[in-house]
Amino acid sequence: MRHIDTLVLVGVGLIGGSFALALRRAGAVGRVIGVGRRPETLVTARELGIIDESAQGFACVSSADLVMLAMPVGQTQPVLRGMAAYLGPNTIVTDAGSTKSEVVRAARAELGAALPRFVPGHPIAGTEHSGPQAAFADLYRGQRVVLTPLEETDSRALARVREAWEACGARVHQLDAEVHDRVLATVSHLPHMLAFALVDQVARSDNAAELFSYAAGGFRDFTRIASSHPEMWRDICLANRAAVLEELRRYEDGLELLRRALEAGDGTALEALFARAQEARNRWLGALAGKMPGSNE
Amino acid sequence: MRHIDTLVLVGVGLIGGSFALALRRAGAVGRVIGVGRRPETLVTARELGIIDESAQGFACVSSADLVMLAMPVGQTQPVLRGMAAYLGPNTIVTDAGSTKSEVVRAARAELGAALPRFVPGHPIAGTEHSGPQAAFADLYRGQRVVLTPLEETDSRALARVREAWEACGARVHQLDAEVHDRVLATVSHLPHMLAFALVDQVARSDNAAELFSYAAGGFRDFTRIASSHPEMWRDICLANRAAVLEELRRYEDGLELLRRALEAGDGTALEALFARAQEARNRWLGALAGKMPGSNE
Repeated sequence: MRHIDTLVLVGVGLIGGSFALALRRAGAVGRVIGVGRRPETLVTARELGIIDESAQGFACVSSADLVMLAMPVGQTQPVLRGMAAYLGPNTIVTDAGSTKSEVVRAARAELGAALPRFVPGHPIAGTEHSGPQAAFADLYRGQRVVLTPLEETDSRALARVREAWEACGARVHQLDAEVHDRVLATVSHLPHMLAFALVDQVARSDNAAELFSYAAGGFRDFTRIASSHPEMWRDICLANRAAVLEELRRYEDGLELLRRALEAGDGTALEALFARAQEARNRWLGALAGKMPGSNE
Repeated sequence: MRHIDTLVLVGVGLIGGSFALALRRAGAVGRVIGVGRRPETLVTARELGIIDESAQGFACVSSADLVMLAMPVGQTQPVLRGMAAYLGPNTIVTDAGSTKSEVVRAARAELGAALPRFVPGHPIAGTEHSGPQAAFADLYRGQRVVLTPLEETDSRALARVREAWEACGARVHQLDAEVHDRVLATVSHLPHMLAFALVDQVARSDNAAELFSYAAGGFRDFTRIASSHPEMWRDICLANRAAVLEELRRYEDGLELLRRALEAGDGTALEALFARAQEARNRWLGALAGKMPGSNE
């Protein structure tokens, strides 16, 4: 890949930080400049070797080869607005937001002539932890990254972003932004909401301490994603509201059927559903084992 | 502890098999006799060193010090009925069912004079795997086992079952059977239903293969328990129907509130709920780290 002389990271936490660390390890990047809301976070990122320097405001993007947006997705439009005037004629901008249609809409609204050099992206990787101290160079190894280019997207810009992710060890796929958002609503955004809702139900109970004291490994794994960053997930839900609502309503309908089966004492229906789910999951795991190294999200 | 000369295992899978393997490692058991529905499973259990011999029917319990019931909980009453006539005057019977009120009801109905030597129990441990090949001696190490003795339960029988679990490395607690069932409905039975329902929703989708192909670590952990044994979970749901339904209805109410917040675009409410859940879970994990070695369920 072509060397990235200057990378600007907007957001230096788990996602942006791991991107920089992976590029550094691949020898693919020179100087990394961090931009962020909290000065103390930028200090930490510098101490951890994620960034070389920090900048205030967006004038720094004028000298960048690549700008990576890795802050909560709700800040995308104001951030693009803030940097638009400074973007150099060769600067490529990409992002790592978990939703894509809203990001594309924001880019169309803010980037003007720079729009062809914007490459929307989403690394399907992560952990429930956040902040620069959670970042690590192996986060993307073997994981999928989805790029959702626009019709206008410059093919060289697209190729360069693809190369950067491949240097991080990721497998790059392309999807239409709306298809991406519907798929992720089902397999990621909905489960996050369900996990948050369950933990909140336990926490709101009169005997919450007793309940938690009997929670074991099944509960721990089911709710792992409920330790995720609240603001990030607020933004994802709002940005992908239509698709998440559609999946949530489908889930509520499915749950109602399950409840009715239980109310009726219909063991046959319960066992059939459980067996269908078990079989589908085990088939998926089997396919996964054939394709992927260990995975995180 | 006193040595168990003869243990009868009814059900030689993950739960019963791990109990036998742990007792063997502790030098706490002599002969282990397996009883089960499927001859090939008993052969496997013998090959794996879980049992020494297998038996047909329940006459074998007449010579047992301890009988462990570790089959799906829906078979409890017919199994107790089948063995009642053979129980020796010193034979203690215990079980590992995930629900306790129905088990207690079945024992009262079937055991007659042997009732005081029945000790209802539930090891809060397990994995999503099943069968004798899934059993391992460390399954219960550091995990909780809940005993829910009856008023009539003989204190020596209770002590002996407690000692056996402690020999497996478990921490033994006592609870009222109904309290147990309500607690487990919230922290175990409900999450299992939610995970089964999500996987089934994905599997029923027109683009199921595409959806699964973008599912990552968050989905994998959230749905791990949906690889659990369908018949076992059918029985648990039916046996603990009232408590599971109550928790399921509470969950549906909570989900409706969450959906309404999303419909209204109420980011403040979403973030508040997510933050409450994140904080509660992290507090629980912190408490857990202080108390427990690695945990499974």
